[in-house]
Amino acid sequence: MEGTVVFANEPILTVEGTLAEAQFVETALLNCINFQTLVATKAARICHAAAGGEVFEFGLRRAQGRDGGLTASRAACVGGCGGTSNVLAGKLFGLPVRGTQAHSWVQAFPGELASFRAYADAYPDHTILLVDTYDTLGSGIPNAITVAGELRESGHELRGIRIDSGDLAYLSREARRMLDEAGFPDAKIVVSNDMDEYVIESVRAEGGRADVYGVGTRLVTCAGAGGGALGGVYKLVELEGEPKLKVSGDVSKSTLPGKKQVYRLMNHEGGYIQDFVCLDGEEMRGGDTVYDPANPLHHTTLPADAAVKELRGVVMSEGIRTVPPETVGDMAARCGSELSRLPSGCLRLINPHRYKVSISDRLKQLRGALIDEHGKKDGMR
Amino acid sequence: MEGTVVFANEPILTVEGTLAEAQFVETALLNCINFQTLVATKAARICHAAAGGEVFEFGLRRAQGRDGGLTASRAACVGGCGGTSNVLAGKLFGLPVRGTQAHSWVQAFPGELASFRAYADAYPDHTILLVDTYDTLGSGIPNAITVAGELRESGHELRGIRIDSGDLAYLSREARRMLDEAGFPDAKIVVSNDMDEYVIESVRAEGGRADVYGVGTRLVTCAGAGGGALGGVYKLVELEGEPKLKVSGDVSKSTLPGKKQVYRLMNHEGGYIQDFVCLDGEEMRGGDTVYDPANPLHHTTLPADAAVKELRGVVMSEGIRTVPPETVGDMAARCGSELSRLPSGCLRLINPHRYKVSISDRLKQLRGALIDEHGKKDGMR
Repeated sequence: MEGTVVFANEPILTVEGTLAEAQFVETALLNCINFQTLVATKAARICHAAAGGEVFEFGLRRAQGRDGGLTASRAACVGGCGGTSNVLAGKLFGLPVRGTQAHSWVQAFPGELASFRAYADAYPDHTILLVDTYDTLGSGIPNAITVAGELRESGHELRGIRIDSGDLAYLSREARRMLDEAGFPDAKIVVSNDMDEYVIESVRAEGGRADVYGVGTRLVTCAGAGGGALGGVYKLVELEGEPKLKVSGDVSKSTLPGKKQVYRLMNHEGGYIQDFVCLDGEEMRGGDTVYDPANPLHHTTLPADAAVKELRGVVMSEGIRTVPPETVGDMAARCGSELSRLPSGCLRLINPHRYKVSISDRLKQLRGALIDEHGKKDGMR
Repeated sequence: MEGTVVFANEPILTVEGTLAEAQFVETALLNCINFQTLVATKAARICHAAAGGEVFEFGLRRAQGRDGGLTASRAACVGGCGGTSNVLAGKLFGLPVRGTQAHSWVQAFPGELASFRAYADAYPDHTILLVDTYDTLGSGIPNAITVAGELRESGHELRGIRIDSGDLAYLSREARRMLDEAGFPDAKIVVSNDMDEYVIESVRAEGGRADVYGVGTRLVTCAGAGGGALGGVYKLVELEGEPKLKVSGDVSKSTLPGKKQVYRLMNHEGGYIQDFVCLDGEEMRGGDTVYDPANPLHHTTLPADAAVKELRGVVMSEGIRTVPPETVGDMAARCGSELSRLPSGCLRLINPHRYKVSISDRLKQLRGALIDEHGKKDGMR
């Protein structure tokens, strides 16, 4: 029996084994792959919107369970985040741990200035002051500037300030101006408060001057389009050498039968053009036609001279992994490199270009033949 | 130091301890309470929409992490679900485990009828047949009826069928008619496929005849309004006997300072009228005025003769729990009883009546005085 994990008709992972073996791992694989892919994708979108600004993951308090939080922190760092406030995730996965003061720190002192001084005293080289507990422009930033001067006198520099409420575009512009005028142009501005890729884009569009974005709830729960879930599925495609199909009234949701291979077409600069799926062992060459699985009237001719790479390899055999584990840093670097090769329209936040995945003529024919067969046999009644 | 977990300005949990102790548990408490409350609430909404139909939780493959899935299954059963497909959650928490055939079972046989017969042979008293692998009305239901007849001849009854795609209102009506005409009026109809409270309501409004709803992704990720997260926060409210405040430009987001008590006003039938929050030790009586924390111009006079109950009690002291754990069944029963006491408008799925939570005059005065004080001292610069 062969099971395949399918996303949007592209088989990303194939499991071969007995029916029981392949069935047994279904839900575990889907649970791992769906959620982590979703969070890494959301993180990549958020980091893309930040356009070079750093992004830290601050979501544990709203994460979906303890392990949901750990998994989300790791996947967020794969997708491009520079650190997490989740200390346990940092320890388990070797992620940079990042954070600032809490409001309760500021509240715990008789005044804001006293609270800032105590923090600077405790962390003279890692001070990021939370300036919005009482009045961001009226007291928070002026008090932070006072402490920045005192730090400098004792040979340290204020790392930055954090704004966690209010009009972040306006407040970050004002904060930049006040810090610059006071002689602290290197102090960073961290903003947070229900951020996601759209909020970041809008803050930047309005001239916001944030250097670092703290993103919590909407990253770890992947709020927004898709509703917190990636719809990857796991489908039986072959049994005892026979290709298998699940029919749907919507042809694009009928499964692709049989054991398959996936190839990627690249331009001469290494940029990705499109992928195509064919049957295992099928020889594909320039001039062959490949088809949109949802609408076979849409087809493309494979160019004669394009570079092609096979996307899949064996990662586990007889229950033993056959490739070494990667560090989160390695995965993040690979993720960044892969994203940079996509057609740029695929990275657009709203109405992105949908990366094309086609199927071979033989695969299309096989699917059609099996659909016809089931239609004729009326479910083989 | 006292920390309070706050939802919509109602303190649901207070932690007393040293500053370090109270701070240490913040994120763990928020992670536990936010997510589980969210899922139980979503489950309660879904079960309310099902209007007596059974609801099973089928979401593990899309859950946010392994533990996110376990936690979601448990909370879903607290909120009203009758079972889960998550076998490990069933084992760990004593939840009823429920499921049906998979499409891969049907695909694994040379024909649909053979697959149904094999299943009925294996589970003669627990057979729910998945009828949509090839053609729901053309082959799935007729084949299920054939097997139902064979089961009856051998002294068993078909439990039901499951429809996992297509127009669920139409197909469930047709399925009911076909099963009834064939002499199987007791065979249940299970429907699934991206269900939530709104889909269930619409299937029912169109005369759908489902007896059981399988709800997965949108339950365990709580897709929809609120975006997969409940926004409960944890705020410092008192330190060394002094009430503490976090100011916000939006008065409704300023915290309620000081150690507090929460009371619930009930009518003579035990129905809930509203809650009110007052300072610890404050004596409240009929004729007292209580205020909307977001808009103090809205106020209510406490009736002289209404029943009042205190909502909170000690659950842990010196690190030891002081009340025994409850079973999920006990919690589910309590949840159902509490929901039945809410004003009925609070259970409406769209634009529900917002249950009223007011604050006492003294609490309002204290908050106002502290806001003024911070304003005057400009953050105590």
